[in-house]
Amino acid sequence: MSILRHLEVKDRSTIIRVVDEWWGGRPMAGLLPRLFFEHFQPTSFVIEEDGKLQAFLVGFRSQTTPAEAYIHFVGVHPGARGKGVGRSLYEHFFEAVRQLDCTEVHAITSPVNRGSIAFHTSMGFEILPGDAEVDGIAVTTNYDGLGSNRVQFRRYLEK
Amino acid sequence: MSILRHLEVKDRSTIIRVVDEWWGGRPMAGLLPRLFFEHFQPTSFVIEEDGKLQAFLVGFRSQTTPAEAYIHFVGVHPGARGKGVGRSLYEHFFEAVRQLDCTEVHAITSPVNRGSIAFHTSMGFEILPGDAEVDGIAVTTNYDGLGSNRVQFRRYLEK
Repeated sequence: MSILRHLEVKDRSTIIRVVDEWWGGRPMAGLLPRLFFEHFQPTSFVIEEDGKLQAFLVGFRSQTTPAEAYIHFVGVHPGARGKGVGRSLYEHFFEAVRQLDCTEVHAITSPVNRGSIAFHTSMGFEILPGDAEVDGIAVTTNYDGLGSNRVQFRRYLEK
Repeated sequence: MSILRHLEVKDRSTIIRVVDEWWGGRPMAGLLPRLFFEHFQPTSFVIEEDGKLQAFLVGFRSQTTPAEAYIHFVGVHPGARGKGVGRSLYEHFFEAVRQLDCTEVHAITSPVNRGSIAFHTSMGFEILPGDAEVDGIAVTTNYDGLGSNRVQFRRYLEK
């Protein structure tokens, strides 16, 4: 049985152990220090099936711009892809931040991550203008330190 | 003249460039992805002297436990130490989160960082119980991934 619930600190050791593998060997665990598991639980979720982690989403409401929510990190077990678990997590997040009076959601991804770009587009995100183009996609160069180009997404939330 | 102001996204490139050096060569920049510069400005500050960055503090209010504030990262230019700039940043942060109805502030540091432990103690933080001791200091082992021991601090705020 699938269960969607809030993220907890105890999920951290499980997630840290699997996340690089889920991301095809890219080193991602460094993007998930403990603070994300402790302080953003109201807008962070996991999906379990029969007690085993299938997917997770870490997001929060911007404290600079409270009408904006930000999705920091999403991971889906490779064996669970194509079944709508990512979609379920995103829809749950949209609902949670809508209740906090957010009117838009932001996210970023790497230009090489075509699956992520297609997913965000299918979830109603638009790609924001950048300062360069990679294979026809607008990217922001040096988004997060030298050489880190990122595609920026925005999705408005219905009232 | 010194100026204390809110952190802005434009500070990111300056900070990323100097922070490893300020921390004595430890690789710290990975702990400062752009999201911290974008989304936690109300409780993040820099001190400049004659337009040059002297120190910065990145902190936020916990969204899980709104009465709790968390100091994520603090850096002080080696040439500006011992002049109270760290103290000024912390006191400004305490005041900012007190106005958000926070009643306590949390922070962590590495057990090797004796200067940080002494600073936090002098700022009224207590060291929270851990699951081990290093040179007489309570530490939490594996706080943030395998092998990362941390000293945990808490300071209650006066009403």
